[in-house]
Amino acid sequence: MYEQTAKYFLIIFIAGLFNMNTALADTPLAIVIHGGAGTITRASMTDEKEATIRAALKASVQAGYRELVKGATSTEAVVAAIKVLEDSPLFNAGKGAVFNAAGNNEMDASIMEGAGLNAGAVASVAHIRNPIDLALSVMTDSEHVMMMGEGAEEFARQKGFEMMDPAYFHTDFRWQQLQRIKAKETAQQEQRDQWFSTVGAVALDRNGDLAAGTSTGGTSNKRWGRVGDSPIIGAGTYANNNSCAVSATGHGEYFIRYVVAYNICNRVESGTPLSEAADTVINDILVKAKGQGGVIAMDHSGNITTPFNSEGMYRASIDTDGEMTISIYREEGEPEPALMGNVEH
Amino acid sequence: MYEQTAKYFLIIFIAGLFNMNTALADTPLAIVIHGGAGTITRASMTDEKEATIRAALKASVQAGYRELVKGATSTEAVVAAIKVLEDSPLFNAGKGAVFNAAGNNEMDASIMEGAGLNAGAVASVAHIRNPIDLALSVMTDSEHVMMMGEGAEEFARQKGFEMMDPAYFHTDFRWQQLQRIKAKETAQQEQRDQWFSTVGAVALDRNGDLAAGTSTGGTSNKRWGRVGDSPIIGAGTYANNNSCAVSATGHGEYFIRYVVAYNICNRVESGTPLSEAADTVINDILVKAKGQGGVIAMDHSGNITTPFNSEGMYRASIDTDGEMTISIYREEGEPEPALMGNVEH
Repeated sequence: MYEQTAKYFLIIFIAGLFNMNTALADTPLAIVIHGGAGTITRASMTDEKEATIRAALKASVQAGYRELVKGATSTEAVVAAIKVLEDSPLFNAGKGAVFNAAGNNEMDASIMEGAGLNAGAVASVAHIRNPIDLALSVMTDSEHVMMMGEGAEEFARQKGFEMMDPAYFHTDFRWQQLQRIKAKETAQQEQRDQWFSTVGAVALDRNGDLAAGTSTGGTSNKRWGRVGDSPIIGAGTYANNNSCAVSATGHGEYFIRYVVAYNICNRVESGTPLSEAADTVINDILVKAKGQGGVIAMDHSGNITTPFNSEGMYRASIDTDGEMTISIYREEGEPEPALMGNVEH
Repeated sequence: MYEQTAKYFLIIFIAGLFNMNTALADTPLAIVIHGGAGTITRASMTDEKEATIRAALKASVQAGYRELVKGATSTEAVVAAIKVLEDSPLFNAGKGAVFNAAGNNEMDASIMEGAGLNAGAVASVAHIRNPIDLALSVMTDSEHVMMMGEGAEEFARQKGFEMMDPAYFHTDFRWQQLQRIKAKETAQQEQRDQWFSTVGAVALDRNGDLAAGTSTGGTSNKRWGRVGDSPIIGAGTYANNNSCAVSATGHGEYFIRYVVAYNICNRVESGTPLSEAADTVINDILVKAKGQGGVIAMDHSGNITTPFNSEGMYRASIDTDGEMTISIYREEGEPEPALMGNVEH
């Protein structure tokens, strides 16, 4: 953590010295985030809830974009954006993580850099405030790609991570959700919804480097140490500067079988345009397989696509023209201006 | 387990009824197995050790082939072949699994079917005699693809799996290996070797269905709950009837980043011949990335390829002509007859 902070300040310092903000102002910057896909309909939403969610999505995408503008790497932008969502009780990651069948939180996260194909992932950690920070540490501070369970937490302790009391992750909303699922009152609907609250981010920085990250609390009432696609490099997260960067959200088992994130990047590397590649995987291959969910994806030019085959997907982006879009439902998509005045420095 | 057994006997019964062995004798059957890749040189091998290893490889490939001839599925053949290697103390899987830094065994396995892209995987199980059996049960008896740790073992208990005493997995060879690594006497060499003793199998059955499976004890002196490529669908194992089936062995971190198994299948699906696709990934992409290891791969016609960029790879196959090949070193490759008389019924 100290190394990270030191590195961060060094970058800010160097950026200041060379006035990178001005010098590289014509280099495209872009970021796209998601807060999960699922059965999100206007009928199931109150105005107040919708406003709260939109505000959180905006805070996340702006936190990431702010890093990019400062000259930080796409990896740092992805981590900054995801941490806002992990710290919010609204999404199934970090603070708002769902409970497993035993009433505990088991969180997964992964991150990947498009420049050198470095990657880090953690599965089933219980005491880490920001699992995406630990995935980053696995990538940068170890020779491994993936760590899990108590071993991953031992690594975190050695790296100086604060161990959170499980009470930190207790949100009444998620606890009641578990009780309802256990009582089978609304089991079918909840089971359908629970898969889809993963968060993620994808960014392109001044160096032209892509990065992608994903973080999740898994599935409510989860048993048997089930692992979904979020911590699986290739399935839930992938990034390669030669093609694209992807973060996924959905019914993880299908995203693993179809290696969704890498599958999309591979098509892009073969020459298929990003939006067509992502659309084929999400709206053709996964639809035929009955695998629900969506992705956020960005190619090396900063083009963004956010296809999903579910009813809605929480998503926000700031594109290479600086235009911000925040969307929940299917029929949206018109960009609204992302004036830099809205971004807190 | 009971369902599996019942299914097995049903297949034998039906095969007998319709005399499938004769009726479908012109349908290609093929199987290829591996017992790991690594720094295997003639200088480091005794005649006795080599004979023992060759006998084990032969027993494994014949066990799988016997299933295929009986009319069993490629999945059943893969499981049968892998169980022979898991039950042998010679390989780093099951009985012969290495010890982690805490002196415990943590085993991973995965399996995938090319027909419906069903898959199952377990990570970090400690008391399961045949982890490949548990991966199979995750695939067939649950709605999940991957389970890990104590949760996976809880699932195993519910499915009637016998919980082995840790003493079962204690082999003196592996224990001494751990002590040497801990003492750092031969740390560098051991660290290089330890990655490469994973086992795996790939098969094509009478229905034209491919399957692939992989099983490992991970890495000796492993810390922090590290997960390698073996339980990762896409990295260590992949199967798709439209392209090929692959099981990998090597430095797992690289196999994850390059999504090796799926990467090869994807190239085959795009029209690249199997041997060229596998060779590109193992001997070009991975070599450039300094990722050591190899794969066994088979396409839907039963063509087999076994490229590796390490000094040797334990491997054996029985091809569509019934010819058996057992190889350890790089310069080998001439087939020897795999007479059915050699296969014990």
